[in-house]
Amino acid sequence: MEQARIDGNTKLLAIIGDPIAQVRSPEIYNPRIVTAGVNAVLLPMQIPTATFDDAVKGIMAIRNLMGFVVTYPHKGRVLPYADQVGPIGQAVGAINAVRREADGSWKGDMFDGAGLIGALASLGQSAAGRHILILGAGGAGSAIAMALAAAGAAMIGIFDLDANRATELAARLQKHFPSCQAGATEPGVAGFDLLINATPVGMAPAFALAPFRGELHPGLTVIDIVPKPETTALLALAREKGCPTANGAAMISGQADAVLAFFGIGPA
Amino acid sequence: MEQARIDGNTKLLAIIGDPIAQVRSPEIYNPRIVTAGVNAVLLPMQIPTATFDDAVKGIMAIRNLMGFVVTYPHKGRVLPYADQVGPIGQAVGAINAVRREADGSWKGDMFDGAGLIGALASLGQSAAGRHILILGAGGAGSAIAMALAAAGAAMIGIFDLDANRATELAARLQKHFPSCQAGATEPGVAGFDLLINATPVGMAPAFALAPFRGELHPGLTVIDIVPKPETTALLALAREKGCPTANGAAMISGQADAVLAFFGIGPA
Repeated sequence: MEQARIDGNTKLLAIIGDPIAQVRSPEIYNPRIVTAGVNAVLLPMQIPTATFDDAVKGIMAIRNLMGFVVTYPHKGRVLPYADQVGPIGQAVGAINAVRREADGSWKGDMFDGAGLIGALASLGQSAAGRHILILGAGGAGSAIAMALAAAGAAMIGIFDLDANRATELAARLQKHFPSCQAGATEPGVAGFDLLINATPVGMAPAFALAPFRGELHPGLTVIDIVPKPETTALLALAREKGCPTANGAAMISGQADAVLAFFGIGPA
Repeated sequence: MEQARIDGNTKLLAIIGDPIAQVRSPEIYNPRIVTAGVNAVLLPMQIPTATFDDAVKGIMAIRNLMGFVVTYPHKGRVLPYADQVGPIGQAVGAINAVRREADGSWKGDMFDGAGLIGALASLGQSAAGRHILILGAGGAGSAIAMALAAAGAAMIGIFDLDANRATELAARLQKHFPSCQAGATEPGVAGFDLLINATPVGMAPAFALAPFRGELHPGLTVIDIVPKPETTALLALAREKGCPTANGAAMISGQADAVLAFFGIGPA
């Protein structure tokens, strides 16, 4: 894997969180930055909660810092630092990437759902006009729902064991993207052409099946955001039934492309 | 040149200055860090004067930042951020590198003269017991004088066109390192075994001769801190006379080794 050659002209990107040692972003993003021919590098920055504000003000004062990506536990705290927030960030009510604009102001947006668009693209598909069932209305489910609606989904049904959470997300979705028909729903797959597992069900070491109902059919694309195992019980079953599938790795790859495009690196 | 492989465990070092694009430190330090087998990377950080304090507080809040090197125009402003200052930094009254200690405090020291010790070592020589004539009592001359005295020089004579500046530096030298005999002097080389040009005289494009007096003799080692040209008029003459010589590149290399050793990287 080719590595960045750092010199005085190198621009900086950061991923900030605490802990930080486990993040894979530097290994995922940096080879893409090298391939794009951009003199920049993404660095892990461990920023404890207690010094979050000092640290963010400080890194924003580094002139050759293009922007930063935010991970646990800081996602809820970075919104006030963006002068401007993109439509998905507004709809989700949180951002996970912030970039420096040409005028020195900062723009944020939320890319936790953007990987889904990339995962669809890896199957030669798009979100436009789709009828989508999302299992899980947590942080990931919310970000995915908003990204799909922004990308032109026709209808999004949301299932969560906590029915209130599903109803609340559907209402926010409807409010921010009125052209997408949104509602809380039972987890039956009939009538949908895209099924997304945005719950942790199926994560290793368990091999549980995400809680859909009904019969998987070849016209249904199945995407599981669980990163490990590579093939969850849901994906194994979907492949058996002839469904196109994409896994957590496709999500991560798609998100990296989307975040880098936001920073002006690689294809938009 | 091998490049660092950045992952979530990578520790950060920075060089802070403004402008920053011209600094060569990332290209000089990073291959050494890779060779030392340490998962760390030195990054350029452009920090404007107006936001210096915010930025320094901020980068010090990045837990995986091991420390930072300071260059123009910030050398005079970083001293208050060090909880503890090494002997050379104290003697010079300025620091150019700061490291995070195990207890979370910060230690600073001045390494602008440390390269001289490395340049001597590259000739198989040391500073101990030497009789040294330094031309130039500016920032570089001061740092070099203190580093040589700390390394055991027996006698240091200082010449500067501004006689007051030479006298003042000699007094500070004497105060901080009483075992080294220090004084302002005329630039005659007789009686010295090491001549150091710490003035900019000889810097390209001019090919002027640094302002020493007397005859260069083979028992006199000559070091010129001017980085460009590689062979200054002084060094060319010294080689003609059979003197051992070292140039600005040897200084830069020696300083990199000393700074990295300060950060716990490579041989101490």
